Order: sequence, then C-alpha cells, then structure tokens
Amino acid sequence: MPLPHVVIVGGGFGGLSAARALRHAPVRVTLLDRRNHHLFQPLLYQVATATLSPGDIASPIRWVLRHQKNLQVLLVDVTRIDAGARQVVVTEGLPISYDFLILATGASHAYFGRDEWRPFAPGLKSLEDALDIRRRVLMAFERAEREADHDRRDMLLTFVIVGGGPTGVELAGTLAEMARRTLREEFRTIETSRTRIVLVEAGPTILASFPEKLRDRARAALQQKGVEVCERTAVTHIDERGVRLGDQPLAAATVVWAAGVAASPLVGTLGTPLDRAGRAIVEPDLSLPGHPEVFVVGDAASFSHQNARPLPGVAQVAMQGAVQAARNIVRRMAGEATRPFHYTDKGNMAIVGRGAAIADLGFLRFSGFPAWMVWIFLHIFMLIGFRNRLSVLMQWALSYLTMQRSVRLITVAPATHVEREIGE
Amino acid sequence: MPLPHVVIVGGGFGGLSAARALRHAPVRVTLLDRRNHHLFQPLLYQVATATLSPGDIASPIRWVLRHQKNLQVLLVDVTRIDAGARQVVVTEGLPISYDFLILATGASHAYFGRDEWRPFAPGLKSLEDALDIRRRVLMAFERAEREADHDRRDMLLTFVIVGGGPTGVELAGTLAEMARRTLREEFRTIETSRTRIVLVEAGPTILASFPEKLRDRARAALQQKGVEVCERTAVTHIDERGVRLGDQPLAAATVVWAAGVAASPLVGTLGTPLDRAGRAIVEPDLSLPGHPEVFVVGDAASFSHQNARPLPGVAQVAMQGAVQAARNIVRRMAGEATRPFHYTDKGNMAIVGRGAAIADLGFLRFSGFPAWMVWIFLHIFMLIGFRNRLSVLMQWALSYLTMQRSVRLITVAPATHVEREIGE
Repeated sequence: MPLPHVVIVGGGFGGLSAARALRHAPVRVTLLDRRNHHLFQPLLYQVATATLSPGDIASPIRWVLRHQKNLQVLLVDVTRIDAGARQVVVTEGLPISYDFLILATGASHAYFGRDEWRPFAPGLKSLEDALDIRRRVLMAFERAEREADHDRRDMLLTFVIVGGGPTGVELAGTLAEMARRTLREEFRTIETSRTRIVLVEAGPTILASFPEKLRDRARAALQQKGVEVCERTAVTHIDERGVRLGDQPLAAATVVWAAGVAASPLVGTLGTPLDRAGRAIVEPDLSLPGHPEVFVVGDAASFSHQNARPLPGVAQVAMQGAVQAARNIVRRMAGEATRPFHYTDKGNMAIVGRGAAIADLGFLRFSGFPAWMVWIFLHIFMLIGFRNRLSVLMQWALSYLTMQRSVRLITVAPATHVEREIGE
Repeated sequence: MPLPHVVIVGGGFGGLSAARALRHAPVRVTLLDRRNHHLFQPLLYQVATATLSPGDIASPIRWVLRHQKNLQVLLVDVTRIDAGARQVVVTEGLPISYDFLILATGASHAYFGRDEWRPFAPGLKSLEDALDIRRRVLMAFERAEREADHDRRDMLLTFVIVGGGPTGVELAGTLAEMARRTLREEFRTIETSRTRIVLVEAGPTILASFPEKLRDRARAALQQKGVEVCERTAVTHIDERGVRLGDQPLAAATVVWAAGVAASPLVGTLGTPLDRAGRAIVEPDLSLPGHPEVFVVGDAASFSHQNARPLPGVAQVAMQGAVQAARNIVRRMAGEATRPFHYTDKGNMAIVGRGAAIADLGFLRFSGFPAWMVWIFLHIFMLIGFRNRLSVLMQWALSYLTMQRSVRLITVAPATHVEREIGE
C-alpha cells in the first residue's frame, strides 16, 4: 500500500516548516509552488531600495529541501482546490490527488476595493514587486535629472508611501537615506537632498502594534531622516499624477502601497467561510470546517481562537502553525485526536533605517542602535543558506560604512521574453 | 564662451574610458546611455548560469563617474545621430548638440539574416539577456521533472550552444557542471546527469583565435565535463522544437546563440561606409571619414589600418581606442594634428569551467588550474567597485568549494510592469 500523500501548497515560511516537520513521518510529501524560490520577505524592502540583490534573500526551494528523501518539489501554477475530490488543480498537467493538504499560500496586496489604484501604487510581496519598485524609484531620479520643468521635477522627487506598518516605515526611512546620502554626489541638475518622502497612515498612529513609547521613538527617527509622517490621513485617490490626501492633492510620480493585504485567491476556491481579508476561518486545530484532511496556515488562515482577533501576518505565526498542522496530520494517521494550535509570541521589531530600530520583546523594550544590531543579527540568523548569510552580512557592513547602495540597477524584461515560454 | 561640448554615447568599456580620459580636459562632457549601469560583459555568462547576481557585475554609471565634475550622465534612448547638424536625437526631449562626439555603442547579436531564429535562440549581451537565459535553463529542468513523456523529457534536457568562441565555450562548460554536479541531488523524476550539452561551431575549430595546442586542451576539458563538441557543423534551422545540424534534426528545448555579433544600429544612422558587420569604417585616428569631430571606438568601429582584418571585439580594443579618441579631441582643440591609433594586444584568455582555462599571453601559453587562477584574479581586478570585487571573489570561492550556484532564481517581470512607465 502506498504511503499517504501530503500535498503542501506554498514554499514560504509556512510551507517549508510543514515540509520539514514531516521529514520523518511515514508519508510521501509533494510541495507545490509557482515560484522556484523561497523568499525571505522581511528583507524584501532592501531589494526594493537597492541594498541587497534578489539572490541574497531567496533560495531555490528544491535546494533547501534537497536532503528530504520523502519529498518532491514541483513548480506548478495551482488554479484551485477541489476539496470534495481531494485534488489540487494545476494549469499544466493532471490534477494532483492528496490524502492530506496543507495550504500555505500567504497573502498579496489588497487595495480595499480600489483595484484601479494598483498600477500606480505597486505593493511589495514578491521579488518582481521589489525590482519594479526599485526601477520606479531609480527612474524617478533619472527623469528628474533630465526634466527642465520645475513642477514636474518636484513631482518626480516626491515619493509617497501608503501605510505606516513596519514595511511602510522601513521603506520610508531607507528611501530618505538613499536620497539624502547615497545619491547626493551623483546628479548635476537636481539636488537629491530636496527629495520629499511622505509616509501616510490612515489610522491614529504608525506602527500601531507597538507600545506608544517605541512608536514615538520611531516617529522621531523617521522625521530626523527627513520623512514627513502624516498620521490620521486617508488616501482618497491615486492616479498617474499622484495621490489625494483627504481632499488635498499631492503631486508624486512614485507611490508605493504598504497598506492592506488579502489572502491568496486560492483560499476562496475551498468553498468554506472566509473572513473580511479573504482568509479561511479555521478550527482550533487549524483544519478546515468539514474537511479534517485540509489544514490552512499562515497568512491564508484566520485563526481567532486564541485572541479576540486573528493572529497577525508574521513569519512566526506561519512557521508555528505549519508545525502544528504537520503534527496533527501524523496524529490523525495514527488515529489520535488532533491538538489545538497555540501561538507563542516571541516579540516584535521594526527597522527605521541605518542605525535605528525598535524592539518589543515583551519583557524588554529598546530602540536605536542596540535594537538595530539585534535586528540585523536576528535576520541574518534566520536567512536560509550559509552563502546568503555571509553575503547579506557583507553587504550590510559595506553599506553601513560607505552609505552606498550597490544594487542600483534598472533592468526590464522585455515583454516578448515574458510572453514566450520555452518548448511550447 | 562656454567650453566645447563632448558627447559620449555608451557607458561600456569604451565610453567610460573616454570619459575618464577627458577628466582634466577643458571640455564639458555628457555621457548618454539607455541603461543606468555599466556592465562587465566578460562575466555575463556567470549571471546566465546562476553563479553571480546582476548586481555583482554591474555598477551605476553615475556612481562610477560621480567625482568627475566636468561630466553629466543622462539616461536617454538615442534614436539617431544627425552628423550634419552635430546633434544626437533622443526619444524623449530635445536633441543634444555636440562639438565632438565619441560613439561607443558596442554590438548586439546578429543572426546572419535569420532574424526569425531570435526568439528561439537568445544571445547574451545584456543583463536582461542573461536573466532570460537563466530562466530558460532553470525552467527546462523544472519542466522535465514534471514531464511524463520520455521524448519530451529528453528534449527538455538537451541544451544547444551555437558558436564556439569564448562565450559559447564558457556557457557550455558551465552548463555541464551545473547539470552534472550542482543539480544532481535536487530532482526526483529526472537524472540531471543525463543532460546533453551540445556545442556547435560552423568553422573548423572552437576558439579559433587561440593556438592549436591550447584549443586542443580546451576541447579535451569540455569533453571531460560531458560537453559534445561539434565542429565543422552548420546550424541550418532553429525553431521551437530545436535545431537542424546540416540536415540532421536535434530536438532541444533550450538553444543559446553565441555565434554572430553586429554593431549597434545607431552606427548606421551616421551615413558613412560600414563593413559587413555594420561597423563604421574609421580613419587611422578613429575619426569618421568627412567628420573629423566624430570618433567611433570599440565594437562599433571597423579599424583595419593596423592588421589586414578589423581589430577583435574585446574590451581592450575599446578602452585603448577610447583613450586615443579622447586625446585626439584634445589635440584638435589645441590646433594640433591627431595621431593614429595603435592597439597593443595584451593577450587572450578563455575559461572552460571550474578549474579549467587557457591563456595565451604571447610570450607564454598555459592552461588548466593556473590559467583559471590567473583568469579569476584578472577579472576581479578589472571589475569596477570594491564591493563588486569582494562579492564576486566570495561567490567564486563558495561556489568552487560547494559546487553550488546560489542565484538560481526564476523571476519574470510581468508585461504590465514593462508597458507602464511612471509619471507618463
């Protein structure tokens, strides 16, 4: 009799943790992803701001899992889950049948029903997103250098970041450093130090998940770097000319979206109840109501059995949930009852820029250079692959010492390269 | 009276050398390029084969030249040269007038009049080309892993390199190592060691510019790595199913073009005589016939005053020519006669793969590990930027020790990102 088949969809923090947790289980595991790489999302903003290369923060999934003999990795595009037939439907080839399914497909940006804003305000979830934002930011400076008209030049040198969570704060702080320090000597027509970086947050405060004292320090650090922090300010419109803040227009050539996320659309094909962000509402053991063989973890799941509101969309939630889902599969196979998931919060950090961060470890709260050092070493430690760790450590050390951002490349894949696929 | 205006088109080896040679000259210099980065082309095949990141071998042109106060860098797309009006015409904005012009626009691939082969056999000249080839190679393995049909699987695992010059040899040797060593453990359905790498050369020998003894060593090293070397073999057809060699079809999902180059089409807009490869035929002082204020250097120029045939398309020719062109501009401004260009050949090297290379320094010919070490240190030394040198040295050391290729990412810029440009 063949071993039970566990299919994992998604090679992010959740998917990899689930795969590893099944390493010694008597199952065949197939991990599906439409990308060939695992991405270390917490450092994606450093690719968007030209400090790190894509290769520094991503590793081929099949390389990461190469020693796991009970596992096969397949690069496929999953179109839907047929939970009734216990099948994963893919774009090319036959559906893939499973005995157990772990869905770890993460989240993408959501524009709160204003999808027409998407082309003008890209979000930051994939390597492609990061390269797109990098290109837009660098192109804005290049165009400003050639622009004779004053107003258009000001518009090109205005950058708006929508959303004051950790990603928005990281982007705003780093962009300000880039404009005021890195690029200062390199242009002849424009003064890059006159660049405006505007961080817009609709809620009462940036970094709402942090204690007030740390928020105040982060806000002060941002302002000291030259970021304009606009809290209690709603973005009411975005188009090619810029944004509207309340009823005030702000001309800006570059807008980045760091405001809302929604679960991957694949979750919607399960046919079970979703929350407002499109996440599957799961049972205490992370299984799907009515489908004890399907587990949903990480950003794709809405788990509110522990606190009043769903767990946050961070790597730790995905990784701990994936391990619990894997254990529950093993228990079910052994005829035992599953156990409820319990999330252990290990703390919360955000980085503001060079030498500035805030950290809330529960028992200890601190900020500034010490928090920045802790942030750096934690993130290097969590990166997959010795080569990545070494490379990122070196890039950070050099960019800290020299203020240079070495990966300032504007590259574009011509449309023909995208449309044509090999061998078809 | 304003200083004379020297416009340089192209930020490659020629353009950068020309700019630097005019550092202390009483001129205003404007360097135009349609990319924001200088690219170290000799290492491009390492990006295509996933050893190096794009950021390792490219530097922003305006960063490289940031300290040169008499120079401005502009990112523009040049459409043609109006030599009569002494103007450079660009896609966006007014034409740029010059007193002197240095054209250093390099070369791109040529398909010997068979442009319909282009989509099936990409060449390797830009970062985008390298990322495209990297994606095709990695995708071929991914598809083979999912493919049930035997013949199609064999086709996916067959790679054809057209052209046995240094680039073709480098690609073939490195691909063979990648298939037989790097990827060996990571697939479950396919055996990557059964991959076929076919290097096709129409002429009587690969590496024709090297002495016979070194060629024989390179050929033996390639064969030992598992490359099939087919000399005196003409490619008569290329399409989505593969290639035809003479009248023999060879099914191959991935074909790379490393055979022919032609000068950038911009050279054709000068209105002066061109050679068969589309290069401008220049005077002994590198100026254009009838246009003593225009100089053409590097791959864009056909200079045959020194030898019977035009100088080869290598970095040294471009760099030495650019310096001579810059000096001739200064001489002309001072009312002195220009001097003819004389190229000093410093030697010829080619790499076959890990630990294998050949070197012909004229007075000394050697091969194997020593040649490979010399090749590595010469190329690290020639890279622009301390950070690039450090990073490349580290990547090479790690990949030599571990046989890993760490930058195995399949990324695609969605067509929408390409079509839409910011602020327009």
